[in-house]
Amino acid sequence: MGLTVAEKLITASLVDGEMKKGNRIGIHITQTLTHDVTGVMTYLEFEAIGLKRIKTDLSVSYIDHNILQADYKNPDDHRFLMDITSKFGILCTKPASGICHQLHLERFAQPGKSLLGSDSHTVNAGGVGMLAIGAGGLDIAMAMAGEPFYFKMPQIIKVMLTGRLSPFVSAKNVILEVLRRLTVKGGLNTILEYAGPGIKTLNVTERATICNMGAEAGATTSVFPCDEVARYWFKAQDREQHWQPIVADDDAVYDQMIEINLSELEPLIALPHQPDNVVPVREVAGVEIDQVMFGGCTNSSLQDVLSIAHVLNGKHVHGNVDTGLYCGSRQVMLEAIRRGAIDKLICSGVRIMEMFCGACNGMGFAPPSKGKSLRTGPRNFYGRCGTESADVYLASPEVAAASAITGKITDPRGLGLSGWEYSMPAKFVIDESMFLQPQGFLDHSPVRRGPNIKPLPDLEAVPGQLSGETLIKVGDDITTDHIVPAGAHFLPIRCNIPEVSKYVFKVVDESFPERARKAGSGFIVAGHNYGQGSSREQAALAPRYLGIRAVIAKSFARIHLANLVNFGLIPFILVNEDEFELIDQGDTLSIDTAILKQGMKYLVHNITKNQKIAVETPLSQAELDIIRAGGRLNWIRLNQR
Amino acid sequence: MGLTVAEKLITASLVDGEMKKGNRIGIHITQTLTHDVTGVMTYLEFEAIGLKRIKTDLSVSYIDHNILQADYKNPDDHRFLMDITSKFGILCTKPASGICHQLHLERFAQPGKSLLGSDSHTVNAGGVGMLAIGAGGLDIAMAMAGEPFYFKMPQIIKVMLTGRLSPFVSAKNVILEVLRRLTVKGGLNTILEYAGPGIKTLNVTERATICNMGAEAGATTSVFPCDEVARYWFKAQDREQHWQPIVADDDAVYDQMIEINLSELEPLIALPHQPDNVVPVREVAGVEIDQVMFGGCTNSSLQDVLSIAHVLNGKHVHGNVDTGLYCGSRQVMLEAIRRGAIDKLICSGVRIMEMFCGACNGMGFAPPSKGKSLRTGPRNFYGRCGTESADVYLASPEVAAASAITGKITDPRGLGLSGWEYSMPAKFVIDESMFLQPQGFLDHSPVRRGPNIKPLPDLEAVPGQLSGETLIKVGDDITTDHIVPAGAHFLPIRCNIPEVSKYVFKVVDESFPERARKAGSGFIVAGHNYGQGSSREQAALAPRYLGIRAVIAKSFARIHLANLVNFGLIPFILVNEDEFELIDQGDTLSIDTAILKQGMKYLVHNITKNQKIAVETPLSQAELDIIRAGGRLNWIRLNQR
Repeated sequence: MGLTVAEKLITASLVDGEMKKGNRIGIHITQTLTHDVTGVMTYLEFEAIGLKRIKTDLSVSYIDHNILQADYKNPDDHRFLMDITSKFGILCTKPASGICHQLHLERFAQPGKSLLGSDSHTVNAGGVGMLAIGAGGLDIAMAMAGEPFYFKMPQIIKVMLTGRLSPFVSAKNVILEVLRRLTVKGGLNTILEYAGPGIKTLNVTERATICNMGAEAGATTSVFPCDEVARYWFKAQDREQHWQPIVADDDAVYDQMIEINLSELEPLIALPHQPDNVVPVREVAGVEIDQVMFGGCTNSSLQDVLSIAHVLNGKHVHGNVDTGLYCGSRQVMLEAIRRGAIDKLICSGVRIMEMFCGACNGMGFAPPSKGKSLRTGPRNFYGRCGTESADVYLASPEVAAASAITGKITDPRGLGLSGWEYSMPAKFVIDESMFLQPQGFLDHSPVRRGPNIKPLPDLEAVPGQLSGETLIKVGDDITTDHIVPAGAHFLPIRCNIPEVSKYVFKVVDESFPERARKAGSGFIVAGHNYGQGSSREQAALAPRYLGIRAVIAKSFARIHLANLVNFGLIPFILVNEDEFELIDQGDTLSIDTAILKQGMKYLVHNITKNQKIAVETPLSQAELDIIRAGGRLNWIRLNQR
Repeated sequence: MGLTVAEKLITASLVDGEMKKGNRIGIHITQTLTHDVTGVMTYLEFEAIGLKRIKTDLSVSYIDHNILQADYKNPDDHRFLMDITSKFGILCTKPASGICHQLHLERFAQPGKSLLGSDSHTVNAGGVGMLAIGAGGLDIAMAMAGEPFYFKMPQIIKVMLTGRLSPFVSAKNVILEVLRRLTVKGGLNTILEYAGPGIKTLNVTERATICNMGAEAGATTSVFPCDEVARYWFKAQDREQHWQPIVADDDAVYDQMIEINLSELEPLIALPHQPDNVVPVREVAGVEIDQVMFGGCTNSSLQDVLSIAHVLNGKHVHGNVDTGLYCGSRQVMLEAIRRGAIDKLICSGVRIMEMFCGACNGMGFAPPSKGKSLRTGPRNFYGRCGTESADVYLASPEVAAASAITGKITDPRGLGLSGWEYSMPAKFVIDESMFLQPQGFLDHSPVRRGPNIKPLPDLEAVPGQLSGETLIKVGDDITTDHIVPAGAHFLPIRCNIPEVSKYVFKVVDESFPERARKAGSGFIVAGHNYGQGSSREQAALAPRYLGIRAVIAKSFARIHLANLVNFGLIPFILVNEDEFELIDQGDTLSIDTAILKQGMKYLVHNITKNQKIAVETPLSQAELDIIRAGGRLNWIRLNQR
């Protein structure tokens, strides 16, 4: 029986378990990436493991999120990252060199290899046939220590692409269509593998855009074959030696198939506050907007910038619309300058921002109160943009550019513009001068740690009985942005768990941290897809720091589930979803956790209501052992003795 | 007897009083400018005056400070400014169009006319022979209402320039030399008028740089003649019709003269934490730095950017040095792109920031803890950069660029670079598309006010007796940055006096606001030059909101003195400076204020120490009447009845 691209990639990296749907498997990780929001904690964790240097082929620490530098916190983090990466043999970029996913695609991503990144959009590198997976920081630290990365072997959905995109209907619409069909839960324990005759019409950055937002469907990863189109990219990046062909066998077997005819796609838009809330642009055309953000890890490629410049060419953005562009990398910026696109965009009234993730997670460029912001980034979660009362819409660069001109949501096809064909440069400008090469495993002068960089909290082992209050009860699709807020005020404290813990569930219920602190222990109860979104492990560790020892939910998002394990919180799943109604916020619960065994069922005793509710965990015995120890760092220490 | 340039300018605008040193004179204001930090309050004040439209020839609302947009506050202010300026007939720029002083110089500044701006660096326009003065927002509001601007006729110092600047010794060094000689107090009640054969070797943006930082000497204004060099500038800006020759008469009489031989100047640098703390670069060469900031209202011209690119050309900034550039305007940015300078700077590892004031007042790009930052901006006050433990140095673009390469403070003349001559474009690219022309005095839809924009507080009239505690005692050269902090955390709340008041004297004594609130009334005691620095009227209004009714000091900075009057606080000056020692923090004082009369002396009764201290005010009867009413807005209301 033939293999899919995904199966070929997994086979190449498999070091533990059998590649069978639902099995727990371990893969060897050849590359890792972190960024500055998740990286500080990751390297503190790697330091706690106690190795002298990394065991991966390549690990990169990008600085692309926290670069507003409103005070000492961001630059202190940057300095810490430069110091500690140099010590351990990790490459580090200087601040604002570009967005990690775009940079990794340009300079490092390799077909056939595995990449683990402490950012959910790491999957971007799937665009060149790399096995690229987002995970919590501690998983990245373990991978740098040479440990396998474990996950449940997902099902594989073939996304069959036919036809060819029409003018002004770009790659973003492909993934918006996937999200419209699958929803934000539909990709759970799934790999999205793109196939069909349509793929050869998509270049590498278009493919990356499509893979990138697979994260929004909850997919474990997304992947394109590596073909001649990809070879052209590697040549243009002056690293053809990294290219190798990887295509699915003709008789490969998929678990499901979705078919999308690219020719039939029209401009789509995700309405507030979820990326699967997708409708055709025409259904909301005319809605007045206050802001347009170009860029983000989905749409900051050269093609995107040139396409925006083509739409705006000679026209001016509407007086009411504040419009900004974040290029994905210095390569993109330099190419765009040399092609005259930046000049054009400035003349059109576009603000040229630094090369970083920018407004996507609220690191500046927040919309006004109750403002409507149209963005090309991957996420529009509630409050993420920094202005809680604002509405964020997600669309393609072409829709965003057309809307910037008119001041309202606009289908670019209605502007009467001539079509335009992007031709990728045969050779990109290559400038790695902002990459700090590791000095190499010297006994480095003391790593400088700013006062906001706090040591990892000590965690206790799980006791034989958990009891306490239901401190909060929330519904479906609670994101990590709900649990630990994004935005310019909160991103800089991510390396300070005592401080982060003061804002847990801020956008849902500001009184939660105080209640939890008073109670000293307790439970979170949630609906489906709990922990959707980013890879931030603070969404597990900060509640744990506040005394939460277990989360009872209908289902969990993949990365967050792993983060709960890593920090010793038990993720319980309701055996009968209807029993969700049997627990109210404030109810006192008790669970016998003397034995944690794979496949076992547990009874939650709702003491307040005097009822029993059956729960189970989706975990392997190895994962339960880690939880029992109080998390993965404790487990390592125990097993090193 | 002939006239100086300054006297000619004052004569042209004089509407009240006699132009005699020390006299209170009133001038007609033809243009005003505000920026977003001072502008919101200014337009609230104009609204309170009750006119339907402005009476100036031109008023411009720039948005160039608060543009990080960490949350809704900045964009709400932007929206408010766009709405309310449109209502009153004021031109408004969209965010990040450039720095107000550079933009005004490019598009609006006119020789022979008067400009009042709610920013101390408004004097920048003195570079083209304009009478340009910084003032508090309420003074700008009054000017827009057609009222004269009153000030004490200053002495005039002739700054005689001879010779010609050497390669890599640029205009910034001229004003650093002036500051070295005069100190930050030396320009009080002074106009600095530049003259001599050296001036024809300086172009308009060089002249503006020199005028700009005259504010740091406390000067009322600075001015250059308007000559053929300036004519070239106006031609290149496509507005030669605004040019007119203004030169001093041969027999003009000056109060003092300073002579500077440009040929003898060497690179200078201001050490932390005052701009007059100036030494030759060679004396501190070799000090390691963490950060370089290019830009700011002093050094963000095209010449500056090209000069930086010339020094960096083909070299890379040091790995340890985080380096960023803020261009002064879209014109500068477009010209720099078209000349290849931006491309070069990106390749050298410079972060290209938005076109705004940026890091100069801590709006992002803060240095790390205890970091050393070398900047081309005008100010290095304690804490202003956003990182209290950091040291900020001020130098020319050439010194900053050389230091960015080496990682330490470096004299650019030691790098063995070839010289370079700037030639100003014969015609600049002109793009006013980010200027929102006022819709014109329509009954505008309600002006949108974000929740952070609070109404002006009501102020009471001054009672017949002031008594209370000495809530704080501070030394010489207390800046408005000490009184009301700058930085990304505090600039966004400037339009919310109850909120601002929580941070009064934050960098000096964090417990002050709480003490003041508890006391309900009290005094500030200070040394010389109290209120140095910016024009922010919050430095008067916020203490007043906390119950402060009088400040007893050895001397006051000009703009702050006027702001105290505008908000009904009495500025008392010690008749005998030695008696400063007779008041300690915590002492209870009492002053009979039943009569407020020009030239009168008052006795401060130190009840705690049972001593009497003689004080007086430097104010006219008109100013004392304003104070008696509880400030200028109250006074207007009383006099309208």
